[in-house]
Amino acid sequence: MDLLRVSMTDGQINWEEFPKDLILGGRAVIDYLLTKHADPRVHPLSKRNYFVVAPGLLAGTSAPNSGRLSVGGKSPLTGTIKEANVGGTSAHKLARLGIRAIMVSGSSESLKILKIDDKGAVLEEASTLKGLGNYRTCEILQERYGGNIGIIIAGPAGEMKLSNSTVAVTDPEGRPSRHAARGGLGSVMASKGLKAIVIDDAHGKGCEAVDKEGFKLAVKSAAEMIASKPICQNLAKLGTGMWVDSDHARGSMPTYNYRAGGFENYEKINGKRISELAEQRKGKMGHRCMPTCVVRCSTVYNDTEGRHVTSGLEYETLAMLGANLGIDDIDAIAMMDHRCDDLGIDTIEMGAAIGVLNDVYLFEFGDKAQAMTYLDEVAKGSPVGRILGNGVSVTANAFGISRVPAVKGQAIPAHTGRTVKGWGVTYATSPQGADHTAGPVGVEPLSPEGQVERSRLAQIQMASLDATGMCFFTFLYATPQAILPMINSLYGIHWSENNYLDMGKEMLRQEIAFNRKAGVAVEGNSMPDWLREEPLPPKGTVFDVPQDELDRIFDF
Amino acid sequence: MDLLRVSMTDGQINWEEFPKDLILGGRAVIDYLLTKHADPRVHPLSKRNYFVVAPGLLAGTSAPNSGRLSVGGKSPLTGTIKEANVGGTSAHKLARLGIRAIMVSGSSESLKILKIDDKGAVLEEASTLKGLGNYRTCEILQERYGGNIGIIIAGPAGEMKLSNSTVAVTDPEGRPSRHAARGGLGSVMASKGLKAIVIDDAHGKGCEAVDKEGFKLAVKSAAEMIASKPICQNLAKLGTGMWVDSDHARGSMPTYNYRAGGFENYEKINGKRISELAEQRKGKMGHRCMPTCVVRCSTVYNDTEGRHVTSGLEYETLAMLGANLGIDDIDAIAMMDHRCDDLGIDTIEMGAAIGVLNDVYLFEFGDKAQAMTYLDEVAKGSPVGRILGNGVSVTANAFGISRVPAVKGQAIPAHTGRTVKGWGVTYATSPQGADHTAGPVGVEPLSPEGQVERSRLAQIQMASLDATGMCFFTFLYATPQAILPMINSLYGIHWSENNYLDMGKEMLRQEIAFNRKAGVAVEGNSMPDWLREEPLPPKGTVFDVPQDELDRIFDF
Repeated sequence: MDLLRVSMTDGQINWEEFPKDLILGGRAVIDYLLTKHADPRVHPLSKRNYFVVAPGLLAGTSAPNSGRLSVGGKSPLTGTIKEANVGGTSAHKLARLGIRAIMVSGSSESLKILKIDDKGAVLEEASTLKGLGNYRTCEILQERYGGNIGIIIAGPAGEMKLSNSTVAVTDPEGRPSRHAARGGLGSVMASKGLKAIVIDDAHGKGCEAVDKEGFKLAVKSAAEMIASKPICQNLAKLGTGMWVDSDHARGSMPTYNYRAGGFENYEKINGKRISELAEQRKGKMGHRCMPTCVVRCSTVYNDTEGRHVTSGLEYETLAMLGANLGIDDIDAIAMMDHRCDDLGIDTIEMGAAIGVLNDVYLFEFGDKAQAMTYLDEVAKGSPVGRILGNGVSVTANAFGISRVPAVKGQAIPAHTGRTVKGWGVTYATSPQGADHTAGPVGVEPLSPEGQVERSRLAQIQMASLDATGMCFFTFLYATPQAILPMINSLYGIHWSENNYLDMGKEMLRQEIAFNRKAGVAVEGNSMPDWLREEPLPPKGTVFDVPQDELDRIFDF
Repeated sequence: MDLLRVSMTDGQINWEEFPKDLILGGRAVIDYLLTKHADPRVHPLSKRNYFVVAPGLLAGTSAPNSGRLSVGGKSPLTGTIKEANVGGTSAHKLARLGIRAIMVSGSSESLKILKIDDKGAVLEEASTLKGLGNYRTCEILQERYGGNIGIIIAGPAGEMKLSNSTVAVTDPEGRPSRHAARGGLGSVMASKGLKAIVIDDAHGKGCEAVDKEGFKLAVKSAAEMIASKPICQNLAKLGTGMWVDSDHARGSMPTYNYRAGGFENYEKINGKRISELAEQRKGKMGHRCMPTCVVRCSTVYNDTEGRHVTSGLEYETLAMLGANLGIDDIDAIAMMDHRCDDLGIDTIEMGAAIGVLNDVYLFEFGDKAQAMTYLDEVAKGSPVGRILGNGVSVTANAFGISRVPAVKGQAIPAHTGRTVKGWGVTYATSPQGADHTAGPVGVEPLSPEGQVERSRLAQIQMASLDATGMCFFTFLYATPQAILPMINSLYGIHWSENNYLDMGKEMLRQEIAFNRKAGVAVEGNSMPDWLREEPLPPKGTVFDVPQDELDRIFDF
């Protein structure tokens, strides 16, 4: 019994058997369950929408970087099917309890916690947690249930039903600093009346490989392969903030509301700066966001007094709340990141939303106090806060802005598609909306040629990877050839690379079909028109991959 | 040269020939031109969107009720192709100048007027009109250009780029009280930098029928047929407010945020009440909104001092700003109608938007002062005003409301689809979003059976009718058999009823194809899920036409 179904309306909890013949995990489980059970036409915040949680195929094992947790549902931000994944400890814990997926339906009038351990699952009252920030909520839950639990949590933004609201997951230190951030799934979770899922795997049965010896060897070989890459060593030293330098250099870092691709003050907000401050303030580089990680790109960022501010001050946050807002004060960015983590807000979407206000004279670049005030407004739920908290598309709509940096309602992330055109193809076409993890393409970034083919392959590979529960960075440096031996020995199967990629193709097909019934036509896949016309300094790039090539991306 | 193309970016004005072999008007011209020239993927407020104006096939003639003007473009409210039509004098005037369509592209930095007469068209400065209400703007234009002009105008709401913004057209008294209200086309017009189109047809060449005698006979026969219907006589006496009684009686009038289908105080806001007040206050029943009208459903509503408040206090306004907000003060409703006309705001969308605020305790039913304050906020452009001014879907999104009375982003109008299920099918499936004029079905309203077939036929017939420039009410009481002889004798053609209906089918096909490329899939056609679950008092009706029947509506 590995499929946990929870009906929030009547408090019913049922354990079912996930089909034994289906070797699926993470995003693939979400695509399968939503295709099978959900009505794509319902409102995302309707009690008839589902909120699904699924660890990946390799979760619960010693496979390197294998602890990504997928959450999913119909998204209030994009109106499409949505999967967002996140590190932290919960995926491993769920897998060690033998759980393949949790499927939550209905809606409870009072706020609840779903507590899961080896004895089963129960719903408990959570009314006292109403409106509390994620950090305080986790402290309370850890006092109540012990320090070794994993927590999956909808923050205040989710409770406020904001379309930009995350699902947070606690990291190894128990902090709610890891976020399944994109697509507003926090509000889907909260709309069920579900505040948090608490997982205690102290007495979990663990995960045992069918071919134990083969699995051990496969893991060792994959871990060595990943760890041997120079870039992984750099990530451990500099965090993902190292990309501030490279994206600045190639002109692909959104700056000043996507009006430039490089930021003159980039050295004030890059990985090197973070690592210097970590040394001065007893922070940490080479932090793990989840057990089994061999890359260690996370960071612990402290204030001048050496107190924790945020963990994992990531490139996307530095670009979107920093460069894109013209803010070069790394402490201010870290504080905004903390604030977003505490509210349960995606920093990419937030940075894009504040940025477009510059077009209507409501935000001046570099004004960190104003940016912080806007976060206060979101927390208060004032009208302008509610506008911003619903993301960049609602913000642009509300203020009559037609230069909208979004696809399918979701903000374009921090590697601009004008300069890295393959990534741009992914933004334009992914069934999940503009998403840098849906199919990254760094090859020959400035040329439009061949990018549709590259994005197609990347989207298929990333879909498959999102089923394994392995981190994005594994994909960048580990090929399917390194992943397959682990899956095959764990499950006692004999997948070829084609089997593995066929899974990704089927996932994309399911997502496109779901979206169509949700009213979102694949024929509309495109980049916002202004990206084809407005050259991005300093490279002067526009997005120039022909529309008719985009139209053929899912011909497979 | 009957196609006037205006590029606002460089001020270029070109006269072209509309294809001679295409007998198209109104909505059919809009569908044709947008299909041929527009990119469905652009942002509705982009300079690459088009704003199109087209009189109907019978405009400029003596055909009864033939002066509807179609305006169109990609809609910021629905994201689809959009046509909205309106009475007033402008369609006749354009036709008498020999103009089949005006197609506006680009964007001017300063506000302009497009002045058209028999000598041609010119763009003139309009900066001094910036932000002025529609009534004052028309006074100024009439002072400048003379009292007999027709005016097509984007109001302050359009200038503010609000998705709920109308295109107003002056009535025979020169008042901006007639509105192409739905779909936010005011903001599309204004985004071009086009404040108003002024039409002087004093020296127009007029419209001459190919078969003059036949046309005269056909017109006479059609006019007599329409005028002989008892319901037309009632409309002249009571206005469209007469439907307050019938919709209340059958439980299909949205009341208290669509939570009831009848309003206990309906007699305070119905047509009878309006006619009593017209008598007391020297108002007028049986008013014509356009020349050639033989129905005369419009009204002139005065205040207690006998001063004009609004012309055409329509059923939809009475229902949506009255019953739906629990407001039974007819003077307050008339004042709100005036305010909406002056700002250029659709009363249906506005009533729906204020109504849903009751769900989040921001509006109390019956609080007319609060409703008026919200209109003030829209006028001011405050954050809450911008939320409301962007329509009910944005309002619901901003405030986390999942019970959204809208289809494709557009508010469900004032004949509820739960009680009049055929109309509901039209709301669910029309390529134009929820629209009561897109395919009205009053037959056997309470039964789900046969409604898809009825809606299909009604949508085809209405599309064809929207090409003729004839009023909705002509359709209700005149069959294609009465319309065809007029078209045939005017153009010297020999259309059968099939030819006529084929035009409507082709229009719907073009609209569906446009929408698909705009990212809106026909497979998503549905009613909001809560309408299938929440019974509407007093009849206890839900929308229960099966989804699989809806899916087949465009099988033709």
